Order: sequence, then structure tokens, then C-alpha cells
Amino acid sequence: MVKIAVLGYGTVGSGVVEVLNTNHDSIAKKAGEAIDVKYVLDLRDFPGDPIQEKIIHDYNIILNDDEVRIVVEVMGGEEPACTFVKQALMAGKHVATSNKALVASHGAELVAIAREHNVNFMFEASVGGGIPIIRPLLASLTADEIEEITGILNGTTNYVLTKMGEDGLEYEDVLKKAQEKGYAERNPAADVEGYDACRKIAILASLAYGHQVDYEDIYTEGITKITEKDFLYAKKLGVAIKLLATCSRSGEKVFAMVSPMMIGQDHPLYNVSGVFNAIFVRGNMLGDAMFYGRGAGKLPTASAVVADVVEEVRHMNTNIRLTWNPEKLHLADMKEASHRFFVRVSGSVSDKGEQVSRIFGNVSFVQAVDGEFGFVTENMEEKVFDEKAAQIDGVLMRIRGNF
Amino acid sequence: MVKIAVLGYGTVGSGVVEVLNTNHDSIAKKAGEAIDVKYVLDLRDFPGDPIQEKIIHDYNIILNDDEVRIVVEVMGGEEPACTFVKQALMAGKHVATSNKALVASHGAELVAIAREHNVNFMFEASVGGGIPIIRPLLASLTADEIEEITGILNGTTNYVLTKMGEDGLEYEDVLKKAQEKGYAERNPAADVEGYDACRKIAILASLAYGHQVDYEDIYTEGITKITEKDFLYAKKLGVAIKLLATCSRSGEKVFAMVSPMMIGQDHPLYNVSGVFNAIFVRGNMLGDAMFYGRGAGKLPTASAVVADVVEEVRHMNTNIRLTWNPEKLHLADMKEASHRFFVRVSGSVSDKGEQVSRIFGNVSFVQAVDGEFGFVTENMEEKVFDEKAAQIDGVLMRIRGNF
Repeated sequence: MVKIAVLGYGTVGSGVVEVLNTNHDSIAKKAGEAIDVKYVLDLRDFPGDPIQEKIIHDYNIILNDDEVRIVVEVMGGEEPACTFVKQALMAGKHVATSNKALVASHGAELVAIAREHNVNFMFEASVGGGIPIIRPLLASLTADEIEEITGILNGTTNYVLTKMGEDGLEYEDVLKKAQEKGYAERNPAADVEGYDACRKIAILASLAYGHQVDYEDIYTEGITKITEKDFLYAKKLGVAIKLLATCSRSGEKVFAMVSPMMIGQDHPLYNVSGVFNAIFVRGNMLGDAMFYGRGAGKLPTASAVVADVVEEVRHMNTNIRLTWNPEKLHLADMKEASHRFFVRVSGSVSDKGEQVSRIFGNVSFVQAVDGEFGFVTENMEEKVFDEKAAQIDGVLMRIRGNF
Repeated sequence: MVKIAVLGYGTVGSGVVEVLNTNHDSIAKKAGEAIDVKYVLDLRDFPGDPIQEKIIHDYNIILNDDEVRIVVEVMGGEEPACTFVKQALMAGKHVATSNKALVASHGAELVAIAREHNVNFMFEASVGGGIPIIRPLLASLTADEIEEITGILNGTTNYVLTKMGEDGLEYEDVLKKAQEKGYAERNPAADVEGYDACRKIAILASLAYGHQVDYEDIYTEGITKITEKDFLYAKKLGVAIKLLATCSRSGEKVFAMVSPMMIGQDHPLYNVSGVFNAIFVRGNMLGDAMFYGRGAGKLPTASAVVADVVEEVRHMNTNIRLTWNPEKLHLADMKEASHRFFVRVSGSVSDKGEQVSRIFGNVSFVQAVDGEFGFVTENMEEKVFDEKAAQIDGVLMRIRGNF
């Protein structure tokens, strides 16, 4: 029997206990040993709850108990999570975490400490919730050089954009509904400004390219400026608007970005709706693959954490190789990245169409209502687009596109 | 440096050599050691091809060479592949294979032999080509009890059905085109009759439930009876017709089947078109997940084989736990499985509608052309459907549905 400790009895922590209880026997069979929770660290008490007998408030009890071989960190936030995780690894305990902030900021360091102490630091649940993506990337796509990873990595924003598109509603109204349903936080900035997706793509890019990608370096644009009107044009163009987090390699350059994008019906992410997440990966041998599922939620996330615990039980005395060099990968300037651009301009095509065509060359116009019109450019570098767009009066909005 | 031998220099075998050459350095980095092909076993010679210097015709050279630690079996077919693989495992060599016939028939036995000799028998490429599904199932979805696996596991049939739906063509015409394009074999029976998908779902079911599922026990229906007219109704119903391979658990019963199915737009497999494959998995904790990509082709398949080789290099002295009990799992009678049914009947709704409603209860009628009509039943057991359908005159076709 393997004893584990769970740090934090919030949504994911209680999910981990529930998954281990519900599937106790089948998990034991797959791990080769039963897995039992010995301690749950939380500041609170839970009188009347069966968990109470395992609740402790002093982390040193866990650190000093040699029977505890695996520590599950599901508190969230950088501190004290980071200190606790380091201490656990240095005490020769394996760690599994769902904490994307921790992994994005300290992943390379924690991977190195784990190797030094011949234990494993695993973090499948930190990206894509229940979707297996970290382990497939590290253990299944190893024959490939990764050309691109593009994901819908945030369920809240995908829900909001899906609803805006389906019901023709404004951003503020859908956000309010999402908050009522519990799909969005009361302070939604981390989701709607793209910060959550940014940390997740930083983790995936670090693993794909083997070097630290700092999330602070990734250009990040949220969905707060997307309006009902943008969806009117999207419908005419037959495209979807999604918040995409992407990294790609072009020669020696690695680009990374979080931004709303228009994608066509032939894009594998086009149909990923509501709170679902999906991650598209292109390998130089494999071609296109996609992983789809629930990117958040108590049990899906806990399922991924427990799967990490099972792998750790199976590799109790072996550090599984994982390349995450702390040396920083310098991202290319996103102004050199190329996309198509959808642009909305005040006025009419008859007034301004000629000017647009003269400046942008070959464009497709999209006629619309309310004293404005739209057009779509060819593929061009971001900085070229910026120069050209500055020459047009009355630009109301631009959305990057890949269709 | 790890030396490997490749058995068979056909499409996949030459792909394996190409992947190892193209990505040699990045693969070495991930594996921790360079991987080099020492021998290629083939009956043929390849004069003028750089591979010729590695070509041998006598398998004993490989078996007796202790430097060869990993054998890649990509010959296909049950024999001599099975004998060769057993000999390799018993000689303490790891094996990676893309051979679904071998794995479906002898997987449990080969897994046991590998464990006995502390080596690994890996077969990611045997299902879903380049799509990582075997390792995710064995190493990522371990916290879950698998409630259902449903896949589009055969690219040829998916291409044919997609083209029939898009272009309104008859089966025979699309098949001929697919053969011309190399998407279908000259003798297409293994694909179009569902035998290929059947072996693949037998492998997935065995892994999901930990016991041998014999492919001979799986009810298998191909696509040869699907007509242009069925797609006319499908369009009216807003559904797709796909060849699905499925296994699911309901209480103690495990069902498995390969059959054309109608699925609705909200089904994750609805949009999987052309030669792409996808596998939908439902876990009791995770909920729904899907894996999508290229189910066949030289480089995608070779990518999966080489990824297995990398895992074997990383686990050179460790057998990775894998539960595949040779004791047979007795599948439930598929007549007890429930679906909706779409039925085409000669005559008109005005003549026969009342009879249909009396016999089937609540149905939805779909008016059509050419002296026939269609209807869709509620969910019901297959045997109940059969009894009821036998009471209706002029039943032309029935397709199972999940929408």
C-alpha cells in the first residue's frame, strides 16, 4: 500500500479523494498497489466530514513521515505551494500537481530537483484539466519535432465566445450568465484577459522545445473587446472566433501568442464548443493530431492528478526523463508572425474600398450594417499589417485569422 | 547508443528508418541515447538504396546479436511475425510493433512473455496509426473506469462515407475513386467489411477491461450496404453516417460492435472526415475525451512505432506494468444492446404510418422520394427492434443511431 498526502481540500483536493475512493480497486490493480490518503493539509477543519480524521494543519508532519511517498499539491498559487513542493521533492517524495501558476514559473527548477532526488514531479492536470496532453507530449510524440501547438485552453472564454456566437449576445451579458452558472469567476480577469491560457501555453511550449518559455514574454490578448458585431461578420465569413493559445517553430524562430482568432470550418478546433478544451499538435512526422475533453472541473482535473499518482507508484524508484532546460528560450518578436487579418472600418466600401485595396492589395470585402464594413487581408506579417492599417481612417477592430 | 533491428522494409519499415534519420538528434535527446538501425530484415534486396548495407535475410543474425536491444516488427500478418516476436522477447529484446492482427490475436500472450523476461512489448501503432491512444489509455486514463470507447478506426471507410455524404455518390463509385487514389486496397474487404476496425476495437477493449476480448466475438457489419439514399435521409435528419467501432460497459455487461451508425452534430466524432481517425473515450471520472489524427500512412504510423522505441530505451531494464489477462472476457449478447434505429420502408407514410406507430410506438417520420419513407425509433434493445421490424412489410434498410 502506498500512502499519499493531499495539500489543500478545495475543489480539486476533494475531487482527488473522491476519485481514489470511487475507483479504489481498479486504481490499485493498475498501479500494482493500493493508494491511500494518509493526510490532508488544510487550514480549515471539516467537522462531520469523514475527511476530518485525516486533516492536519502542520506540513512538517507530512515532510517527516517516511511512510508518505507521494505529495499531491492542489492548493493553487505560487506560495506556499512552491516551498512545500520543493521540500517534498528534497525529502525524496514524489509530487503531483494541478497548479499551472507553479509549473509555469518554477517547472524547470522543480523538474531538476526531482531528478536530483530520483523522484518524479508530474503536472498533467496543470494544462487541459482532464485531457491527457502533458504525458502524450512527453512520452508519445517523442519521435517528432513539434512544429505547432494550438489550443483552446480556457473553458470560461470558450463558453463565452460560443454563447455570443450562438445566441447573438453581447460579451457583458454572456459573462454575467456564465458567472451565475459558475462557469466564470466573480473576478474573471485571469480567464477573459487570457492570463490563464498564457501560463498553459508557456508550459506546453517549454515541453515542446525543451527550454524554459517565460509566460511574461508571451503576447497575450483577451476576449473583452470582441463584440456581437464581430460575430455577425464571422457568420458571413463562415468562421468561428476562438481564444487560441499557440506556439510554433519556423526555422530557428519560436513564436508564442494568446489571442482571439478566426478559424475556418476545416480547422480541427472549429467545433470545440462550450466549456470544452482541445489541443491541436502538429509534428513533422505525425502530421496533425488533436486532444479534446474537459479542461476543468473537479473530477476531470482530479482524474488527471490521480493518473499522475498512479504513474509515480509505477515509477517509485525511477526518475522518468523529461527535458525542461532552465535556460530561457528567447521567443521571436510576434510582430514577425504572419496571419490573415479581419478588419472592421467605419464608412462604406464605396467610399473607402479603393483606399483599402490600394494599401492592402488583394482583400475580400464583407458588407455589413450600421455604417461600417469589413475586409479580410491575405497572410502578412503583423508589423506590415500595423503599418498599413495605420494608413486607413476609422479602423474599429482587427481580429487575427487562420482560415 | 542503442542498436535496433527492423523486421520488414515495406511502407512502415521504411518510414521507421526515415523518422529515425530525419529526427535523429532530437530523438537521441529525448531517449537519452542515440538510436541506430543495425539490421533490416527483408526477403528482398534493395540495390542502390543506402539501406542495402543493413539488409539481412536470416533472422537468427538478429536474435544472436546481443547488441540489438530492440526489435521493430512491421511485417504485418500473424506469421512469421508472431514467432519472430516471441523469439525476440525470449532473447531479452524489447519489441515495438504496428501489427494489429498480431496484437489482437496474441497480445495477452506476448505481454506475459515480455513481463517474464523483464522487457517491454509495445504496440501504439497497431490502433489509430499516429494517434496516441494505447499509451494514454494505459498511462493517462488510469484513474478512471472506462465506460465507453468509440472510434472511427478505419480511414478507408471514413473516406468513402465522407465522399458519399458530400458528393452524393454511390458506394461503388467512391470506392473505385478511393482505390485510384491509393486510399483503398484493390481487395478492400478488410476495410469495408469492418474487419480492420474490429481487430482494433478488440485491442482497445482488452486494454480498457484488462481481459482478452476475442475479435471473433465482436459483431461486425461493414459499409457495403450503405447507399446514396441513406445519405439523403441523413441530410434531412442532420446526422452523419460513420463506421463506428465501439465497446462499452453497462453494469457487469461489456458490449462491443462494429457497425455503421448515425450520429448527431453534438457527437465529438461527427466532424471527423476523410481519412482521419478519432477515438472517443468516456471515463467515469474524466467524462468525455477524444483523440484525433491520422490513422494510417507511412510517417504517422512510423512516428508511433519510433515513440514506442524511445519509451523502450527509457525503460531498458524495467517492464512497464500492463494488465491484459489472457482469461477471456465474455461479451454480452449484442441483441441486448440499445440504440435508436433509422428504418427505410417501401410505400408511403399515409399507407403504413399508422402500422409503424402501432408497432414501434413513438417514432419520427422522415418523408422521402421514390416510393419509400423513413422513420427513427426511440432507444430500444436490438432484439426488441428485430421483433418489431419483422412485423412491418417492405423494410429496405436499418441503420443504428446514437443521436
